[in-house]
This record gives sequence, C-alpha cells and structure tokens, in this order.
Amino acid sequence: MMKMKLILHVLVILLAIISLFMLIPAGIALFYGETECLRAFLLPIIVLLPLAIGLYVITRKNRDKVMSPRDGFMLVSLAWISASALGAMPFYLSGTIPSFTDAYFETMSGFTTTGASILTAIEGLPFSILFWRSLTHWLGGMGIVVLTVAVFPLLGIGGLQLLKAEAPGPSVDKITPKIAHTAKLLWFIYLGMTVIETLLLLLGGMNLFDSLTHTFGTMATGGFSTKNTSVGYYDSPFIHWVITIFMVMAGLNFALYFKLLTGRIKGFLIDSEMKAYLGIFLIASLAITFSLMKNHVFHGFFESLRYAAFQVASILTTTGFATTNYDLWPEFSKTILFLMMFVGGCAGSTGGGIKVVRIVTLFKLAFRELKRLIYPRGVFHLRLNKMVLRKDIISVITGFVFLYVFTLLVTTVVVAGGGYDILSSFSTALVTVGNIGPGFNLVGPTMNFSFFQPGIKWFLSLAMMMGRLEIYTVMVLFIPHFWRKL
Amino acid sequence: MMKMKLILHVLVILLAIISLFMLIPAGIALFYGETECLRAFLLPIIVLLPLAIGLYVITRKNRDKVMSPRDGFMLVSLAWISASALGAMPFYLSGTIPSFTDAYFETMSGFTTTGASILTAIEGLPFSILFWRSLTHWLGGMGIVVLTVAVFPLLGIGGLQLLKAEAPGPSVDKITPKIAHTAKLLWFIYLGMTVIETLLLLLGGMNLFDSLTHTFGTMATGGFSTKNTSVGYYDSPFIHWVITIFMVMAGLNFALYFKLLTGRIKGFLIDSEMKAYLGIFLIASLAITFSLMKNHVFHGFFESLRYAAFQVASILTTTGFATTNYDLWPEFSKTILFLMMFVGGCAGSTGGGIKVVRIVTLFKLAFRELKRLIYPRGVFHLRLNKMVLRKDIISVITGFVFLYVFTLLVTTVVVAGGGYDILSSFSTALVTVGNIGPGFNLVGPTMNFSFFQPGIKWFLSLAMMMGRLEIYTVMVLFIPHFWRKL
Repeated sequence: MMKMKLILHVLVILLAIISLFMLIPAGIALFYGETECLRAFLLPIIVLLPLAIGLYVITRKNRDKVMSPRDGFMLVSLAWISASALGAMPFYLSGTIPSFTDAYFETMSGFTTTGASILTAIEGLPFSILFWRSLTHWLGGMGIVVLTVAVFPLLGIGGLQLLKAEAPGPSVDKITPKIAHTAKLLWFIYLGMTVIETLLLLLGGMNLFDSLTHTFGTMATGGFSTKNTSVGYYDSPFIHWVITIFMVMAGLNFALYFKLLTGRIKGFLIDSEMKAYLGIFLIASLAITFSLMKNHVFHGFFESLRYAAFQVASILTTTGFATTNYDLWPEFSKTILFLMMFVGGCAGSTGGGIKVVRIVTLFKLAFRELKRLIYPRGVFHLRLNKMVLRKDIISVITGFVFLYVFTLLVTTVVVAGGGYDILSSFSTALVTVGNIGPGFNLVGPTMNFSFFQPGIKWFLSLAMMMGRLEIYTVMVLFIPHFWRKL
Repeated sequence: MMKMKLILHVLVILLAIISLFMLIPAGIALFYGETECLRAFLLPIIVLLPLAIGLYVITRKNRDKVMSPRDGFMLVSLAWISASALGAMPFYLSGTIPSFTDAYFETMSGFTTTGASILTAIEGLPFSILFWRSLTHWLGGMGIVVLTVAVFPLLGIGGLQLLKAEAPGPSVDKITPKIAHTAKLLWFIYLGMTVIETLLLLLGGMNLFDSLTHTFGTMATGGFSTKNTSVGYYDSPFIHWVITIFMVMAGLNFALYFKLLTGRIKGFLIDSEMKAYLGIFLIASLAITFSLMKNHVFHGFFESLRYAAFQVASILTTTGFATTNYDLWPEFSKTILFLMMFVGGCAGSTGGGIKVVRIVTLFKLAFRELKRLIYPRGVFHLRLNKMVLRKDIISVITGFVFLYVFTLLVTTVVVAGGGYDILSSFSTALVTVGNIGPGFNLVGPTMNFSFFQPGIKWFLSLAMMMGRLEIYTVMVLFIPHFWRKL
C-alpha cells in the first residue's frame, strides 16, 4: 500500500515552504507598487497556508514512519507537479501569463531549472513576476542537489549510487538527521556561492535586481534571464566570464565542495567525473573558438574564446543563457554545441542531461568489451575513482541512458506531430528532457516556446519533469508493478 | 603474433573469387560492345589472378591452422578494404568514375550494402558498369549473412552470440566443415530468394537487366538502382509491393529460414526479434499512412499505404530505395522515418543499423531496472526466446550500442567540419554508419554524395565499413591491446 498520509504530510510542508518564499516577490510587488501582482502572490498564500497547516496537523497523527522506495518516487513526482501548479498561480492570477497552460509550462521550466520560456517579451514585465520566475530556478536547483546527493542514492538512482546506504529504504525519522545534516551543508554551499556570484555581478556593473536573478539562473543551471537578449544584453567581458565560471561550478558535483570544505583535497582531485567534465568543457570551447576564428565571427582569439566558453558552459551545464545568437554560428560550432546537449553536468550538480559520470561509465564499459574481444577469458572490472563498479549499478546506468534516449525520441515524435521540422522537434526534445532551455531553429536562442500547441506544451512539461527527476522516478509510475500490492 | 600468412591465404582466395565474379559484367560489356569497360574488367582479373594463385601456393605451405579472434578481426576488416579496392578498379579504369576516391566510396558503399552513391546521373552509364555496381551489393550481402550467422558468433559479436560455440576460437580446419555447411545452406536460400524476386519483377513488366539489378539491391538491402529516380521510375503497384515484401524478408534473420526449411515452425514463430521487427514495420507504416492521408499527399488509403510501407521497409531494413521524394513529406512522416534509421534489420540479415534484437534487449533491460526500483531485492533474469541472456552478452550489446552512437556522433562532427548543416551532417552519419544510403536534406533521396570533400568521402567509407562490420571488428584494431604480444 502507498503511504498516502505520509506522502501528503511531506508534500504540505514543501508547499508551505514554497508559499513562504512567495513572500519575497510579494514584498517586491509592494515596493514597486505592482498592486495586481501583490494580490496574485498573496491570494495563493492566504488560501494555501491555513489548508496546509490543517493538513499538516491531520496527517501528523498516526502516519507511517518508514518510507518505501515506491512512496519516495510518488512523493518526488508529486512534489514537482504540485509545486509547479502552486508556482504558476502568480503568473496566471496577475494576468502576466493569461493562459494557465503557459503559466504551468513556465513554472515547470523554472522548478526543473530548464529555462525554456513561453514569454515573447521579457523586459516589460513587473519586477515581482520576473523575480519569482528566477526564484523558481533557485529553489528547484536547491531541491535537486538535495535530492541527488541525499535522497536519490537511497532510492537506487541518480548516478551517485556509490554512496548508496545499506538501509532498505529511507526511514523518515531514522534518516532525517543524516539527510537534514547533509541538506544543511549543501544549503550553506549553495547560498555561499549565490552570495559570491551576486557580489561579483554587482562589481561588474549589474544592478542588484539583475545580479540576483542572473545568479539564480546560473546557480540552478536554469537560464531564465530578465533581458530579452539574455546575458548578451551586457556587453561586459567581466560579466560574461563570471557567469561562465559559475555555470561551470554549478555543473560540478556538490559533494565535491563538501570534500574541499572538509579538507579532503585528494578526494576532490582524483574525481574521474570532474576531470572528464572539465576536459569536455575545455576541448569543446577550444574547438568552437577556432571554428569562430576561422569564420571571422568575432575579433581575435580572446573574444572568440569568451563567446565559445560561455556558450559551451551554458549548454554543457544545461543552463541555457546566451550572449549571442549561436544559431547563426558556423555549422561546425553548432554541431559541437549539439553534441554538448547530449552530455549534461555532473551527477549531484544542478545540471541536467545524461550526466558526465554515466558517459564515462559507458566509455569504460565499451572499452572493456573491446579488450574482452582480444582476451575472451580475461576478467576486467570497471573502476571509477579507484573503486570497482558493482554490476547492478552498471545495469542501472545503461538502463537509464536507454530510457533517456527513448524519452528523447518519443518527445521528438510528439513535437513533430505538431507539424514542426525534424531538427526543431529533435532539439526541442533535447532541450526539454535535458533541462537546457533554448535549442536550434524554431527553439533557437532568440526564439521561445509560445507557438507550440497546448497539448505539446503539456507534454513538454512532463518531459522537463522526467528529465529533471532522472527519468526512472517518473517512468516507474507508469509500469503496472508499481500499482500492485507488495 | 598475428598469423599474417593465414590471413593472406584466406584473403587471396576471397579476392580471386571476386575477380571471377567480374567475368559476368565483362561478358555483359562484350555483349553490348562496351569496349572500354571490357578492358576495365579484364585488366584487374589478368593482373590479380596469377598473383593470387602464386600467393595462394606460397601461403598454403606451413601456414597456421587455428585462427585467433584477433586474426579474425584483421581478416574481416582487410577483406572489406581490399575487396573495395579491387572492386573500384572497373569504375576507375573505364573512366565512368574518374576520381579514385569516388570509385572507392561507391564500391565500399556497394560491398557494405549501403547504397550511398556519388553518381549524379545513372541512366546513361554502360550496362556492364551498372551491373557490377549492383553485383557488389549482392556479394556483400551474401558475405555479411555468412559472417553474422557463421563467423561473428565465434568471435563473440554480431548480436547472435546465443549461438556462440564453446570453442575458444574458430579453428580453420576444424570449423570449416561446419561453416562450409552453414554457408552452403545460406547460399541456397539467398540464391533461391534472388531467383524468385527476379521472376516476380519480370512478371511485373521489368526487363531482365533491371529485374536482376533491383533484386541484388533488395536482397542485400543495398539500394543501388539503375534508374535516376530509383524504384519510383516504375509506376507499378505490383513492383512496389514485390520489392517491399522482399526488403522485409531480406531484413529478417536468415537463420529463421533455416528453421522454416527444416520444419521447425515453432522455433520460427516464437522468435522475439522477428515479432518486434514486424511490429515496428506495421506500426510505422500505418502511422505514416495516416499522416500522408491527413495531408492529402497521395490518393486514398491504399496508395498512401503503398508509399508508406515501401519507404518504411526501405529505411528500416537499411536498403535505401525510394519510390518518391520522401524529403517533401509531412514532418511527422519524416520524423518516423528518421526514427527507423536508428533501428535497422534483424541480426543475421543483410540489413544494417543497430538491429532489432539489441533494441529489444535494451528495452527488457530498462524494464527490469524499473521493476528493480520497486523490488530492490528481487532477482530478474532477461529472457529472449525463452532463454536466459547471459550477463556478458548483455554487456557486449550495451557496449555495442554505445560505440555505435559514439561512431555516429564522431561522424557527424567530421561531416559538419566540411561546413554542412546539423541535420544533413547527422543524417549523413546515420545513413552511412547504418548502411542505409539516402537520408534527409543534402543527402535526401533525390541527392547524392558527390559534393563532399575527398577527406570526408574517405571517412564515410570507413564509417560504412565500421557500421557493416558491427563496429567492434574495426574499432578493436585501434586499441593498443590489439597490437600487444599475447
């Protein structure tokens, strides 16, 4: 039996927290005299908070204490679905986004740190709305780091199963102290990096509002900007480089920052995923730099490198900011960016995509198979960070990559069903399932997602959620075994 | 140590056989008075045959008897490389294809049963040249069936490892009788189907020359036609359906025809791969039929079905014939065809691509991982045709699919380096590595491969060979372990 009471209990706490965060944009609305928006923020809080408190009290009594993996999957999926419904309210009630479908899409895009937008003109919108839009990124990013570092390993997914605890499932009361401790540390790191980036952007000449919102977009690898031309609005190499570096940092496994903070420098330095991730970033950036220079798109090496590194970081980490319309770049540069869309950040980061550790594992697996062809009776273990990878973990990873590609292809077909060309459909699938944001052609960096039919928008909302929740979490709800009695 | 003497021994036999097959187009050249061509066919035979006989005699003495897997990989790769060099001679020497790069590309495309052509106008070419071009398909297809059913399983690859013998490696003298027996039966089936299709096409109103050449293209899932507009030249539903059905039959595992011929009907009927393959064919054909009807591309259901089924069969089986310019079809139809490019035929057929059995295995693997999330301590075996799949076979399959996708992406980057758009570059990679032939955009069904730079053509020749030889065979030559002393 699903422990619905327990699930509901955790869910109302989460929704209450989100509604409390809505007080910040409500304050901004008050400050700027955005009356319509103020009402749109307060109404959901006023309706939800008493309801949440009531449900909290009811579900508190006689609830189960131990959560099974099934309950975990249900909870995590429902969390993103209901948070997006709640978060969409201000957009919808204020009339900024008149269609609920669009408001839901935009909020799901925010909480999943995707950054795909249905807005056609951003700069004219109320400050409170823009702030809330960026804040959904920041909250979603925080949620994902906690999930992948502290919760997913207990459920057996997420690419960090090496940390998998021996406990059969997370028991809320038993595990809570540990999760709470981990979450607090992560919160501290995330907050610290947010403060530092904001200060650096202020130093670069951004105003406080834009510094904060762009930092939210960076740290969450989200990509919502407050400017129509994204980061390209700022003609400042300093700002471009700051955001590039913080995107790369946000795409790193947050567990590594733990290690750094606790003095385990060696544990940080031997990390295979980090090395592969930085290697991919460097090689792709240089390849595009030379392609841009050969085609005289910018002036000289350093300008080309700046635009190339920014865009590679933005797409590799699945952020989706842009400093220029890369859809007009030489085909070779675009193809490298297209490849980056398949990679994604590190496991345990705010980045989406397949993730570097899985690709590294598949490379090692394929290489082992090649060796086995020569030494048919040889025994070769796959190692990662000097540890032997268990066979069942390798199965989880290969299963994941297959389901990821399968989800990509199904999404492509659904989008193409709306009459869009193959490249647009395929890149729409890549940027939603991979939580990137902008892609190529119809969904290029100067375009938006407003033109899609409502049915496609709902499907893409699901696709963003599936990608964000490591596919398994959502897909497991669709197999009959999930609903059988144990 | 590589057994170069033994490898050379087998290689000269193979090249001698191919040169003997050149006598057929030589006869055609004689019949039609194509003097230039006659010389172009006879010259390589006259030079090669005495050389081959000499080498045969020399390498016959004191040669090793047992072939290791390494020798096998080297032999198979060298077979396709040298056969293409020999087969390119008539095109080059006759002046039909003045560039050797182009002649080699065309021949590799023939022997790998790809069907990608650098020819811009086909109908004006000498009969003997067109016949040889189609014959390379037929010989290559035969070679591949024998390899995948009788040789690859011994090397541990090819998707039919279930049949893998217990012997450490194929011993030429020990295994020869068994391989020879299997090969003879396959030869009989392949020849029989070739005769039947030729007769049916004659019945449909094709002349003997076109019936034979199109049958070669069908049975090998190759796709070279003697007409500029491919099978679209024939405005005959009967011809379209005959070729559709024979393409589907050529994409089936030839081991199944064994079973049928030896009365093991049940063994035929339970085959999971066949059922999945026919299911994919039916669903994709119907989806495209309805998309074509909705957009009024053809008149009514049956005409739409005919064009849809032909094109799905052509791309799914990696043949590459066309009855119409599908690049102008509605985007949804094109996207379904695009998906089919990832699938390919059955293992043990003449079809290329990833192959249905591998995709079925990955689906089962992913589904098992989903079940394991619900029952973390459950033990689930993967079964195929009621047999449990061994773990090492699953690793070979996942490793293969990863290397296949990796090869696709590298090929895409190389092609894009020539300045071509992403869709053209990606679809060029798909249709060469997958041995399909025509793709989308610049390499669409009305286009050809002549415009690529020579460097890209050589790389694509390699890509076709890698795809045809199950990636592993060629890639294993590039790892250092291959060249180490055992």
